[in-house]
Amino acid sequence: MNYEETKNMNIPDRLTRDLYQEICRIPLIDPHSHINPLSAPSRSLVDILGYHYYTELAHSAGMDQAALAPEISPREKVRSILGFMNRIDNSVQYSWFLEIARSFLGFQGDRVSADDCDSLFDKSEQVFGNPGWEDDVLRKSGVEKVFLTNDFDDPLEGFDTAKYVPCLRTDDLVFHLDKVATRERLNRATKSDVSNVAELRHAIGTLFQHFQARGAKACAISLPPSFAPTHVEEARAEVAFAAILRDDANDTERTILASFVFWTLAEFCKEYRLPFDLMIGVNRRVYPTGVFQGQDLFDQRTSLIQYGALFNAFPTVKFPISVLTSVQNQELVSYSWIFPNVLTNGHWWYSNIPAYIEPDCRARLQAVPKTKQIGYYSDAYKLEFILPKFNMYRRILAGVLANDFVRPGIYTEKGALDLAKLLLRDNTQAIFGA
Amino acid sequence: MNYEETKNMNIPDRLTRDLYQEICRIPLIDPHSHINPLSAPSRSLVDILGYHYYTELAHSAGMDQAALAPEISPREKVRSILGFMNRIDNSVQYSWFLEIARSFLGFQGDRVSADDCDSLFDKSEQVFGNPGWEDDVLRKSGVEKVFLTNDFDDPLEGFDTAKYVPCLRTDDLVFHLDKVATRERLNRATKSDVSNVAELRHAIGTLFQHFQARGAKACAISLPPSFAPTHVEEARAEVAFAAILRDDANDTERTILASFVFWTLAEFCKEYRLPFDLMIGVNRRVYPTGVFQGQDLFDQRTSLIQYGALFNAFPTVKFPISVLTSVQNQELVSYSWIFPNVLTNGHWWYSNIPAYIEPDCRARLQAVPKTKQIGYYSDAYKLEFILPKFNMYRRILAGVLANDFVRPGIYTEKGALDLAKLLLRDNTQAIFGA
Amino acid sequence: MNYEETKNMNIPDRLTRDLYQEICRIPLIDPHSHINPLSAPSRSLVDILGYHYYTELAHSAGMDQAALAPEISPREKVRSILGFMNRIDNSVQYSWFLEIARSFLGFQGDRVSADDCDSLFDKSEQVFGNPGWEDDVLRKSGVEKVFLTNDFDDPLEGFDTAKYVPCLRTDDLVFHLDKVATRERLNRATKSDVSNVAELRHAIGTLFQHFQARGAKACAISLPPSFAPTHVEEARAEVAFAAILRDDANDTERTILASFVFWTLAEFCKEYRLPFDLMIGVNRRVYPTGVFQGQDLFDQRTSLIQYGALFNAFPTVKFPISVLTSVQNQELVSYSWIFPNVLTNGHWWYSNIPAYIEPDCRARLQAVPKTKQIGYYSDAYKLEFILPKFNMYRRILAGVLANDFVRPGIYTEKGALDLAKLLLRDNTQAIFGA
Repeated sequence: MNYEETKNMNIPDRLTRDLYQEICRIPLIDPHSHINPLSAPSRSLVDILGYHYYTELAHSAGMDQAALAPEISPREKVRSILGFMNRIDNSVQYSWFLEIARSFLGFQGDRVSADDCDSLFDKSEQVFGNPGWEDDVLRKSGVEKVFLTNDFDDPLEGFDTAKYVPCLRTDDLVFHLDKVATRERLNRATKSDVSNVAELRHAIGTLFQHFQARGAKACAISLPPSFAPTHVEEARAEVAFAAILRDDANDTERTILASFVFWTLAEFCKEYRLPFDLMIGVNRRVYPTGVFQGQDLFDQRTSLIQYGALFNAFPTVKFPISVLTSVQNQELVSYSWIFPNVLTNGHWWYSNIPAYIEPDCRARLQAVPKTKQIGYYSDAYKLEFILPKFNMYRRILAGVLANDFVRPGIYTEKGALDLAKLLLRDNTQAIFGA
Repeated sequence: MNYEETKNMNIPDRLTRDLYQEICRIPLIDPHSHINPLSAPSRSLVDILGYHYYTELAHSAGMDQAALAPEISPREKVRSILGFMNRIDNSVQYSWFLEIARSFLGFQGDRVSADDCDSLFDKSEQVFGNPGWEDDVLRKSGVEKVFLTNDFDDPLEGFDTAKYVPCLRTDDLVFHLDKVATRERLNRATKSDVSNVAELRHAIGTLFQHFQARGAKACAISLPPSFAPTHVEEARAEVAFAAILRDDANDTERTILASFVFWTLAEFCKEYRLPFDLMIGVNRRVYPTGVFQGQDLFDQRTSLIQYGALFNAFPTVKFPISVLTSVQNQELVSYSWIFPNVLTNGHWWYSNIPAYIEPDCRARLQAVPKTKQIGYYSDAYKLEFILPKFNMYRRILAGVLANDFVRPGIYTEKGALDLAKLLLRDNTQAIFGA
Repeated sequence: MNYEETKNMNIPDRLTRDLYQEICRIPLIDPHSHINPLSAPSRSLVDILGYHYYTELAHSAGMDQAALAPEISPREKVRSILGFMNRIDNSVQYSWFLEIARSFLGFQGDRVSADDCDSLFDKSEQVFGNPGWEDDVLRKSGVEKVFLTNDFDDPLEGFDTAKYVPCLRTDDLVFHLDKVATRERLNRATKSDVSNVAELRHAIGTLFQHFQARGAKACAISLPPSFAPTHVEEARAEVAFAAILRDDANDTERTILASFVFWTLAEFCKEYRLPFDLMIGVNRRVYPTGVFQGQDLFDQRTSLIQYGALFNAFPTVKFPISVLTSVQNQELVSYSWIFPNVLTNGHWWYSNIPAYIEPDCRARLQAVPKTKQIGYYSDAYKLEFILPKFNMYRRILAGVLANDFVRPGIYTEKGALDLAKLLLRDNTQAIFGA
């Protein structure tokens, strides 16, 4: 029995297993990732275990951050992280790693430890170093297209935008325009010298032009729990922006400008017919001395009502929404059921574990039009993570389809698989025009 | 095999199925609906598919609201909505419709579409037009009594109040007394000319007298997430009411008067021994250009602590509480476990889908005295919806009873059915005196 | 078949049952209780049914508090509470009582009522009056050590601190130092005359010295939902404390002093290497006329972000955290996954029912390092409650291990039991050094 067969045997319910196996045949479009298209697959095991999910969990479990210092070799970094695996082998993140090791590196064991460092590291260099690896991993993972997360000043050159779909990430524009460096990046990217809000708006328009010309299919942003955007009169924005340019802005002025830029982005999304992915609820740098990318957390006290004015003002803009808690998901289910332009999007970050995916997915499938749901995205930094993350989702989806749809006679197995295809592929194509 | 048999076969677990079938024999009292007793059943399919659950989901899935314009014929409205069913056939609301079509209209298919419009519409006119239909649907649904939602100025005439139980709905009094039209309705209904708070209080008392004389069994209100009522001194209320009468009130004055009227309602509930149904958490007109009754949403940031003063001030008034999210349900479980006068009431609106009913129901059954739980209400506008909505609840209840009570040996099957009878009938009788 | 066998037969799934039986063999360390070590077991049934879980549920279900008045005999109090059991026999709290009656009092029936009062009461006096009962109940419950909750001025004398582990409870110091009585207790306990913050800090240090000398293994506190501690400059604390000493403090000054004392406690936890148990979210006296200990409730609108500054300021202090709602648990899972010094601790109070334990436990096991989880504590006031409460948790844990870990092939049964041993014993030893 090979690995794939073993894996499927681990779904004890036959109907769920059958559905899972069929769902795995649906060619994927991954609608959100952090893949660098110029270096999409891993080069060695450090690209796998350097993923913040492992560094932050190992650190949380006791690993000193000195183990990750720049002067430490990739192999020794991996050895340190593997040395803490026996404290986190209960986690779903560990199971992703084990699935990568088994699927791609021929690992045969049940548990992985520091003792496996050298053999796995050597094997990873060998496998990942193969010139055909990028195509291999995409094929083995059944992936056709991967959406990217591009800085606003990304030249978007040197890669196949039909395979790696550009996406304009706008956090810096909305939340960091008070930094000189951000404004300089904007000026350089748009060949402008922005000194008022009219010029700012024009520069943002130039970014949209550039992104659309290079095949971008979405605009995206992550938002703190307190953010509540409103339309800002240009005159008020002008005063706030002037204060920012003088490096003399207070919090209110920063908030006004953030709202103004955010609203302007929505206006361009309307003009350029781009969906605007909102990832709602993250506070940055809550643990500022944590590992790289392992510093952000959330405050559950947030509501989609904060975006009510936005949803009403832009009925033609589609807003695929990601949230961080199950109670926000309950709001999301209701808002997507009412607002034509609000859509459910994947299972994000801290909510991306089976204990939360399963109830969140069930609720969406029971109450949101099936054409408005984007089932899942990988959020991956390296291609190898697409397989285990989507497999986790596909197993859960298969179980929900079996128990909530096929067994009660709502759908046949064929009907359930059609729904899965919407969630994993067709809706993404229709919503983003990808 | 007839439809009923097929339906029951769809519960794969035998114990759950047995319990479900027995639970279906319990004669229902539906403790909250929006049934118009003068026109209780549907007259044609447009009364079924015109229910906001279908218009809002079809609209959310892409249907232009022009399809619902007044000049469009009922048949064509139905055709439009049916044309969007293939986008929402995953939803539990769709399953209610299918159950209506199968149970009452002899529909035999597995899916319904615009192609079924004419045959279903014709059949609906034929079936619903039968003069005995009202009694038929009540009998087929096993319903003995249905609670209504009556405007405060409802004459409550022309119907059998033993079958259709009046209930004083008070949203307008609490939240819309700043509108001339509301005050005129109040004056007309009470033959008064309210110009100060003493007269206002007297007029409200007149309403209670009228409702009680006509057999009303509850006072009810839906409340926004931010509402936090307190006792208001009459002098402060007088100032606020004077400003409102002058059409010169600010938000604070409106809030003061709302609190005053709400508190006055609680005082009359005490005097007239009427339970006060609180439906907590809805914001009105969040999507103001949505379809009729498909515009309201919520903000999960609300707490029952906002009603702490009320619960303490009126220990003899029973407060059956409905909430909109599972985290509010967690509060409700705890508040009902502590406060003798706080009771759990049904599964309301956006929380009325199996993914939320099941965990909410489990928690209540594990921690709230069984005599303080009102299991379910239909919230229906037309009698035909009572059957599929209660069936949904009964299926979930049967599963929870099987897994949490019968299998672990806590109750025998007989004991579990006794509990179901409390939830579906006996508690409603005892709590409302119905 | 004896009682133990029957009980286990009630777990219908064989794998879960097998795991449960093995988990029951793990010797327990109970990391949080309210046991009085000088009177640890019950003396009669009134110590069991006088537990607030029964008095508050009986009262909530309709029992007049007169039944609990001081002049009522213990036997008659028990009779009254038993008389309301038929209204709460659905509750998990009732099932704890039934398990106590069956396990310790030889009760054979299926339901318990006022008719059982005399026989059970007599039997309880006989069994609990046995001089070896304390050791018996600990042995039958498989308990090695029990953590206490000691007032700051507890002499900690007259008991075996190896078996009953002292724990410094600090609610009074943080939230009631504005009361003369609290300050007098502090002065007496520390032989001081505290009149400024330097002396206050010194007195608190004296308490830590005393507790550590007597084997204390933790500092603990319960916190209201609105509390958000920050570091307070000593000068600001001085002004606030002076106002309090003059009995002239406003709310702001009380909050400043609370923050100052709380922060000072964290500093001493650091110095004395004591974990600081935070029990977050309870509002005291929400129902002030409720039964003793049945007056407190919560407000779900709280966030762990309120403790962000604390977690960052004290990286060497371990913070085992208890929360009251599942959405707070979702935050806790994420904060424990990121912050090395944040740990998950048990299932507290209103969240201590299977409907919430199960999802909360699943999420922790999927995303928090397994070495950072304290599975459960009894919170018991009398030793007899440790068995049924831990059994409830062990049954749930066995089910989660079976379905989420063993069946999907993540752990062998042996591996799952090793995890259970961490949760129930090893982590408690490692984290508290017990």
